[in-house]
Amino acid sequence: MSWRWALRSWRSSRARFNGRSHEMNFSTAPCGALSSRTSISPENPTKVLVCRDGGYLGARRLHNIRYQHDHDRSSEEESLDPFSLVADELSLIADRLRSTIIAEVPKLASAAEYFFKMGVEGKRFRPTVLLHMASALNMPIPRPVSNDLFSNLSEELRTRQQRIAEITEMIHVASLLHDDVLDDADTRRGIGSLNLVMGNKLSVLAGDFLLSRACIALASLGNTEVVTLMATAVEHLVNGETMQMTTAADKRCSMEYYLQKTFYKTASLISNSCKAIAILAGQTAEVSMLAYNYGQNLGLAYQLIDDVLDFTGTSSSLGKGSLSDIHHGIVTAPILFAMEEYPQLRKVVDRGLKDPADVDVALEYLGKSQGIKRARELAAEHANYAIEAIDALPKSHDANVYISRRALVDLTHKVLTRTK
Amino acid sequence: MSWRWALRSWRSSRARFNGRSHEMNFSTAPCGALSSRTSISPENPTKVLVCRDGGYLGARRLHNIRYQHDHDRSSEEESLDPFSLVADELSLIADRLRSTIIAEVPKLASAAEYFFKMGVEGKRFRPTVLLHMASALNMPIPRPVSNDLFSNLSEELRTRQQRIAEITEMIHVASLLHDDVLDDADTRRGIGSLNLVMGNKLSVLAGDFLLSRACIALASLGNTEVVTLMATAVEHLVNGETMQMTTAADKRCSMEYYLQKTFYKTASLISNSCKAIAILAGQTAEVSMLAYNYGQNLGLAYQLIDDVLDFTGTSSSLGKGSLSDIHHGIVTAPILFAMEEYPQLRKVVDRGLKDPADVDVALEYLGKSQGIKRARELAAEHANYAIEAIDALPKSHDANVYISRRALVDLTHKVLTRTK
Repeated sequence: MSWRWALRSWRSSRARFNGRSHEMNFSTAPCGALSSRTSISPENPTKVLVCRDGGYLGARRLHNIRYQHDHDRSSEEESLDPFSLVADELSLIADRLRSTIIAEVPKLASAAEYFFKMGVEGKRFRPTVLLHMASALNMPIPRPVSNDLFSNLSEELRTRQQRIAEITEMIHVASLLHDDVLDDADTRRGIGSLNLVMGNKLSVLAGDFLLSRACIALASLGNTEVVTLMATAVEHLVNGETMQMTTAADKRCSMEYYLQKTFYKTASLISNSCKAIAILAGQTAEVSMLAYNYGQNLGLAYQLIDDVLDFTGTSSSLGKGSLSDIHHGIVTAPILFAMEEYPQLRKVVDRGLKDPADVDVALEYLGKSQGIKRARELAAEHANYAIEAIDALPKSHDANVYISRRALVDLTHKVLTRTK
Repeated sequence: MSWRWALRSWRSSRARFNGRSHEMNFSTAPCGALSSRTSISPENPTKVLVCRDGGYLGARRLHNIRYQHDHDRSSEEESLDPFSLVADELSLIADRLRSTIIAEVPKLASAAEYFFKMGVEGKRFRPTVLLHMASALNMPIPRPVSNDLFSNLSEELRTRQQRIAEITEMIHVASLLHDDVLDDADTRRGIGSLNLVMGNKLSVLAGDFLLSRACIALASLGNTEVVTLMATAVEHLVNGETMQMTTAADKRCSMEYYLQKTFYKTASLISNSCKAIAILAGQTAEVSMLAYNYGQNLGLAYQLIDDVLDFTGTSSSLGKGSLSDIHHGIVTAPILFAMEEYPQLRKVVDRGLKDPADVDVALEYLGKSQGIKRARELAAEHANYAIEAIDALPKSHDANVYISRRALVDLTHKVLTRTK
């Protein structure tokens, strides 16, 4: 079974799927399917995309045309780093988050704040994306009654959008706490996992507590569509985790299943929260869907690279990563692609990868295959879809909007080129 | 330290507490504190209550005055059983619940529906309370434009109130699933616990899934106050479970701490959902608070009796219950009351009740104390508060309202006299 078939099949299942709300939907992407010869790869990020119908100059090129300033980037690189651009606001969000999750019961308070303390807040990737998305969608609003009112309205909207970033972090950390219990993990973000330090019970309870606080914070926004989006993201996290637990051979070896699981586990939270940002801003369904598509494809690209790095680590050589997935019997994109080239790998995978000798054989096949390369290419493909979504947003001449859209594009590149 | 002091202290802490929303609040109860000589006991449920100010004929008597028909009850007992009265609606809710929690991922679907299958749905106590509360608050609404519109509006309201009953069950079952993982329980509702049958991972995930579906269902009601109430109940469940895990001697031996924990673990969900029913009906703050007070006191009475039954089981003799709490080192009201009479019991409890010999000593003290009796009295006191809340509702001459209010009062008696 070709992975491209799987992908097409997956896409067509998505199309059927789109009858249900908040699911994967690429239908608004300006280019539905890219031919294999023209997919960009991370090694050559400026390579031009051509659609099967031949009429499309790829998103990255469009992006380069639109953002001419890119040529002078080096001088301003530091000031335009997506994370630096919103550093102050990220600190504000972190402070407010810490005050939002104070529990009455002392033990619960310690558990809940564990991953929100200074220094262990993680990369803050999601809040960074969401703050830039908020600015990127800051399209003109009807002339307000007074400047004061205008200023108040903008500020209020921004605060509400910051709340989405906080809620997203709460949901994300809640899922980490529960996942670490499920996986019996002992480290997270460079420190002992909460289950290791305070036990499984407090980890489960702290996760539940964060979910309830997220729900209360959501309710305070007074927008039931946004509540539904974010609750759906929680459900998807659970779906993804459950799908990953499967032992059924046909599912473990299916690219379609893998991509669906990856959407649920990684992409749904960021895509739904991007959409929530748009909805709070009162954006149209089309713009909200573009925000969703950006988040979805960024999330998929992120996880694909994550899965590659599990094999390669910071170097590009196979076997230098932690090999955590394969040692846990989790089959990811690189192995699925390798299996396409070497169907005999399927038998090894079907045995469950519990035997270290089987893992070695699988790594050998992976090494002589195009698995890693193809997984990177697929990540690049999704990164392009993400860029396309940004490019398809209504034009704006606002400098801040411009900077934020560029930051969102830069983030897709950071996702592709990251080494950890 | 007297338990009455603890109770007063607890009440005064509640009063301070009431600055925060949705916490325990007895302040609307017509009689703030009942003197010990006049508290009713379950053995003599018609005994009259007298307030410390001497001016109050207890709620049960008021209730008897208002519900004169009680004298002819035997003939209609069957038809007026609170559970039978709403049997059809309970089935409807159970069916809808089953369709609400269908998960896309098959394994998750099996786990999530585990306690919603026919025969293992439990007593359905909460939905029964909530359906009667909905009818009890069915006060006249302004004359509608047409009979059709009136009928549609009522039906729509009823459906929304049924949703609260469904959401309450989802939250309740989610908390059971997580609690059973935390307690490593092996049975629940007469069958194997989900963690035993499908493992801890799926139990945690199914709990999270139910919480996310509850949140989505809440959002669909479009009332953010209701979302906040129900999310607060989830948080309280977590608070209660965490408080129960404490090993601090001063907390384990404090009546105040015990009652606070009991409110969080048992009473908050039913009190907040009763209030949600009132809010959906567009009731005033006063009526909503009465609904809340009913649920709160019913919940406290329920748990106090539960704690008594853990010692007595179906008989009234000590030691015939499962003794599950004391064997897990959990200190409940009967032991706390016994400790008041026999302060030397404190030392035994402080050692953690891990040694079976200590458990035997504790049971010996409990046997010669008034602990069980006093716990039952406290339950009766709270049952009376619950009845008072119903009695304080605005008068109505609607027969269905009358029947439902009587059912709510009957439920308080069932709580006191239940043997399992």
